[in-house]
Amino acid sequence: MDTIYLDNNATTPVDPDVIEAMVPFLGEGFGNASSVHSFGREAKVALENAREQIAAFIRCEPSELYFTSGGTESDNMAVLGTARRLKNRRNHIIVGATEHHAVIEPAEYLHEKEGFQLDLAPVDSEGYISPMRLRALVSDNTALVSIMHGNNETGTVQDDMPKMVEIAHQKGAIFHTDAVQSIGKVDIDVKALGVDLLSLTGHKIYGPKGCGALFIRSGLKIDPLLHGGSHEKRRRPGTENVAGAVGLAKALAIAEKKMAEDYGRLNDLADHFIDSVLNTIPDVRFNGTRSNRIPQTMNFAFNGVEGESVVLSLDVEGVAVSSGSACTSGAIEASHVLTAMGIDPIVAHGSVRFSMGRTTTREELDYVLEKLPPIIERLRAMSPVYNKQAHS
Amino acid sequence: MDTIYLDNNATTPVDPDVIEAMVPFLGEGFGNASSVHSFGREAKVALENAREQIAAFIRCEPSELYFTSGGTESDNMAVLGTARRLKNRRNHIIVGATEHHAVIEPAEYLHEKEGFQLDLAPVDSEGYISPMRLRALVSDNTALVSIMHGNNETGTVQDDMPKMVEIAHQKGAIFHTDAVQSIGKVDIDVKALGVDLLSLTGHKIYGPKGCGALFIRSGLKIDPLLHGGSHEKRRRPGTENVAGAVGLAKALAIAEKKMAEDYGRLNDLADHFIDSVLNTIPDVRFNGTRSNRIPQTMNFAFNGVEGESVVLSLDVEGVAVSSGSACTSGAIEASHVLTAMGIDPIVAHGSVRFSMGRTTTREELDYVLEKLPPIIERLRAMSPVYNKQAHS
Repeated sequence: MDTIYLDNNATTPVDPDVIEAMVPFLGEGFGNASSVHSFGREAKVALENAREQIAAFIRCEPSELYFTSGGTESDNMAVLGTARRLKNRRNHIIVGATEHHAVIEPAEYLHEKEGFQLDLAPVDSEGYISPMRLRALVSDNTALVSIMHGNNETGTVQDDMPKMVEIAHQKGAIFHTDAVQSIGKVDIDVKALGVDLLSLTGHKIYGPKGCGALFIRSGLKIDPLLHGGSHEKRRRPGTENVAGAVGLAKALAIAEKKMAEDYGRLNDLADHFIDSVLNTIPDVRFNGTRSNRIPQTMNFAFNGVEGESVVLSLDVEGVAVSSGSACTSGAIEASHVLTAMGIDPIVAHGSVRFSMGRTTTREELDYVLEKLPPIIERLRAMSPVYNKQAHS
Repeated sequence: MDTIYLDNNATTPVDPDVIEAMVPFLGEGFGNASSVHSFGREAKVALENAREQIAAFIRCEPSELYFTSGGTESDNMAVLGTARRLKNRRNHIIVGATEHHAVIEPAEYLHEKEGFQLDLAPVDSEGYISPMRLRALVSDNTALVSIMHGNNETGTVQDDMPKMVEIAHQKGAIFHTDAVQSIGKVDIDVKALGVDLLSLTGHKIYGPKGCGALFIRSGLKIDPLLHGGSHEKRRRPGTENVAGAVGLAKALAIAEKKMAEDYGRLNDLADHFIDSVLNTIPDVRFNGTRSNRIPQTMNFAFNGVEGESVVLSLDVEGVAVSSGSACTSGAIEASHVLTAMGIDPIVAHGSVRFSMGRTTTREELDYVLEKLPPIIERLRAMSPVYNKQAHS
């Protein structure tokens, strides 16, 4: 069997049709979209077509969509830009306890360096934020509430986002959501959600790395993160990455067509995989929720082992998965997402994320289901912390 | 004759060999360079090879080179990051009067919003900054001096950069240079220059848009612009754009081979074109210097016409050029680069930039030299400001 890639939440290969759409804008259609001559106009048309397609997909106006270098920049632009814009009028921000580092870290920077108060909105054991608990945190001093749509580690989707947005808006706060893991996998409608800002990127859904976008609701003013040049209506300067934008639009167009079918198929595969792991391996915890979730994502904590050891053992068997979130592998702390869900840090250390993609098959999962139990058993046998007696 | 592209300072097509080098890292080599499994390791190797190649090209250590989304981000990271890091200890910054907007605008933001004093280092009529005049501006309160290497509008290369760096360092200030237009066209050696920070990008030299780099001298601490994740040693988070980095490295590798030959050939073509324009068209000023310059770039002010009208007229004839700098076309102010060189704003409005590329031929230039004089004559005939009597 070929190598099995179950780390699609980290990144995905670019779809061949996306590459085909991009290459002309690397080669002959290479113009600078800000130039007024024919080369520039051709590039500009491609850029604006891409913007229109993506805007239609998330149900905003093209004028509300700004291209960035990816999810991290979009998140930083939303968090830092909103807070800096409102500084001295509102000096409090709230971010979900299970946000991506690209939201938590700029929030912490604002707290540590720029005088903002910071609250983390707590989550329950499945990763959900309760609107009632959010209400208790929001005040007239709150500039920004940032709560992610679908979690990158667990796949938990915040059902109650429209309600949370309403709570933020009642106090005059701006609402941002990081939809990087949700986009192209579950329906995203900025109007229905009611959010003011939404981050997205393409490389989790078969688009290119290095290109993302930020939805900024019409009329909302935020400080730019980068300065220089009149691109993107002065909100994001720099020569436009036309090929990247075209690739992002194409990736989302493909996702739009396949989303419903993929959702059902991956949900069935997830049920099979989750049930099988829970039934065949003792002392394992499924991290997240079985109800409203991105079905691609399946996270387990294997008691008594290091997640990283499972990753390396599966790699030897030709299976690629991750522990913690891919963006911080190399870090040795327990996942902040899992500990925020009340999971003991020692247990959280044993967490492994399996994230499926469009091509994942039942045969691939069954191969993993065959290889995984002996790996866990072997690692536990070597573990100084796993209590062999209690589980023998 | 095919369309003639003389706007290579705005952007260039990606070299087919660069596309060929990139595509594998969009497709099968798509891994997240931060993942620990085989897909991630393969991507990491490619990323680090790219870093080593680029570092060798500018003579720095690989550990001193950080990938960004392009020149604008590199410039912003250098200017904002240095100033914010030194804030409250040093509150003064100096930038050249002819800097790119990606340097001037973050400097103005620091001045207007973050309490920094700002001085613009003046240039002479050829665009040179005199070290002596810089010395008069630098003080013990100066955090940063940012002076570009080769100018995007005129091609003027600051001969005396090592001297300017020495002046900045004597007062303990950090020195940044924007080498976006110089890289791959003239030799860049960060050790010989002595700079602390250097911005570069690939899309001016047949590399992809959306990927650049910032050299940060070993030991120098600057505030990051983006927060989140441990990528690029925590200095620039976000999933690495591996294909972009590979493309940037490949573009520079090609440039390294062709640079000496291109320089000589383009210098000869520039001499021919500049002399011909000056000899065949009355009332025209060559903007810049005939001595140390990026030969690709030729900027003229045609008295009594709008540069934009020349651009559009040449576009009709199948020739792509630009007025002002491409990054701010759409802007109607006279170029700040030219006015800083002492050119009357009304004259500067008539400026047009012809920027050659690797494939530019003498035949192409001769075609332009045939089409240009009647265009200028026609526009002047319609001009309300051009004094026909004086020049008839």
